[in-house]
Amino acid sequence: MLPSKVTLVEVGPRDGLQNEPGTIACADKIALIHALAEAGLTRIEAGAFVNPKWVPQMADSEAVFAGIERRSGVSYSALTPNLKGFERARAARASEVAIFAAASEAFSRKNLNCSIDDSLARFSDVTRAARAANIPVRGYISCVLGCPYSGAVDPALCVEIAQALLAMGCFEVSLGDTIGVGTVASTRALLEPMLKAIGPEQLAVHMHDTYGQALANVYQSLQMGISVVDASVAGLGGCPYAQGASGNLATEDVLYLLNGLGIEHGVALDKIVQAGDQICRTLGIANHSRVAQALLANFKK
Amino acid sequence: MLPSKVTLVEVGPRDGLQNEPGTIACADKIALIHALAEAGLTRIEAGAFVNPKWVPQMADSEAVFAGIERRSGVSYSALTPNLKGFERARAARASEVAIFAAASEAFSRKNLNCSIDDSLARFSDVTRAARAANIPVRGYISCVLGCPYSGAVDPALCVEIAQALLAMGCFEVSLGDTIGVGTVASTRALLEPMLKAIGPEQLAVHMHDTYGQALANVYQSLQMGISVVDASVAGLGGCPYAQGASGNLATEDVLYLLNGLGIEHGVALDKIVQAGDQICRTLGIANHSRVAQALLANFKK
Repeated sequence: MLPSKVTLVEVGPRDGLQNEPGTIACADKIALIHALAEAGLTRIEAGAFVNPKWVPQMADSEAVFAGIERRSGVSYSALTPNLKGFERARAARASEVAIFAAASEAFSRKNLNCSIDDSLARFSDVTRAARAANIPVRGYISCVLGCPYSGAVDPALCVEIAQALLAMGCFEVSLGDTIGVGTVASTRALLEPMLKAIGPEQLAVHMHDTYGQALANVYQSLQMGISVVDASVAGLGGCPYAQGASGNLATEDVLYLLNGLGIEHGVALDKIVQAGDQICRTLGIANHSRVAQALLANFKK
Repeated sequence: MLPSKVTLVEVGPRDGLQNEPGTIACADKIALIHALAEAGLTRIEAGAFVNPKWVPQMADSEAVFAGIERRSGVSYSALTPNLKGFERARAARASEVAIFAAASEAFSRKNLNCSIDDSLARFSDVTRAARAANIPVRGYISCVLGCPYSGAVDPALCVEIAQALLAMGCFEVSLGDTIGVGTVASTRALLEPMLKAIGPEQLAVHMHDTYGQALANVYQSLQMGISVVDASVAGLGGCPYAQGASGNLATEDVLYLLNGLGIEHGVALDKIVQAGDQICRTLGIANHSRVAQALLANFKK
């Protein structure tokens, strides 16, 4: 039941960096994106066209997109919450854009300032414009395994939202355990109805490691046929809902799992370790990849 | 195929603390063991009767065993590499003793100073004496998924050693991925022949998190019918083979997985988090449990 090939979607430069405090030089973001593409990643979230008042770290996304040398076969995507963001992304020549719904009314209202239904209506403007411009749109659903405000989330609601996103033209829906509360059991309980309604080729998982479960949850997902996995180099991006807690699953740790399983992915682990080490040194932050910690510790011997 | 009940073997007070530099007060070790038993753990590795020249941190194991108030239904075990150690453990009223073989000739020679065969001969003196004294003996095999000196390890050799340990009277064999290099794939490749030769009720797994794979490997093991899992509160115990790398899998993180799966274990997660927080504060070290990090971060909100 395991897929023979897995595609990694690298979210470090956007999801990973967006909550970093302090200024990150545009050149450092560009160097990171170059290093990730050079390592063999073919899908890289490179920035976000959102209101800089809310996400100041992404305010230079135009400059990032203008500065990257595009590699053939690599998709550089941008988060676009609305039509205005989409127009900026198109002008910046983003290969792909992404929209962001939530599987919880409470989270949607707190983060998108509107109901789930209203957010979907707003996103349909984006998907319509993207279709006209021939730009693929990825849909994210956050809080699929739990909401920081309202707790448990109904898998049936997740399926409904995923179907709505696909119906409006998304080519893929990434299921996000935004607060990392999921376990292999809740992952299975979500994916069972999801995979009855939607083919695995239209689904991705985006697991957070807040409770140390992310890699086990990815393994559970692979066992059920999922073959697109989101991850963040060096585990960039903490958990904004619990200071000091872990956040994104590290790309390096997923690669180690895939290498063990002999699943094809096309990415050079050693180059990813170097890319993660470089950005962590530049920013003066800890590297949250256990694989990177182990390999870099060995290098130092 | 998942077990309905899992027993945790807590290795924090021994495997977790043994490589900590600096003096740890005997009273702090005793308080930790009390807190772990109070939380519902029924199998606790409380110390080691080894040459204090090699493991100075365990030099006070007699005092630890003399100081703990025994809880009914709780087994307090001690590592005993030889007959001399066993006699000390018996005098200290250890409920159970453990012997330690390796699945690699290179590791055996470096760590036990003898071949695998010679170590088994030495251990048979211990199991003979233990049988006479009616003290149960647990067998460990280290390096089952890889050796720091010689690399890959043959599952067939692991099976042979496990059978030898059971034949000399061990009631259970714990399979240790000492350097944490294993993946779900190598875990499966080990357990497949192992479970053909030996019933799951005589096997345990002891996974290290050096490459972030430990919990996924435990999940793989559970899926194959393993129901005894070693873990260390707060992830105590780094990796002696890679400075700065992660070591033992945290008890808290395993409990979170089991809670998600609805698998019975009898342990109160909140009390384990408190016990881990306490020992980490006392020692001034980082808490490596991601569950503890997340829950303690929330407590501080």
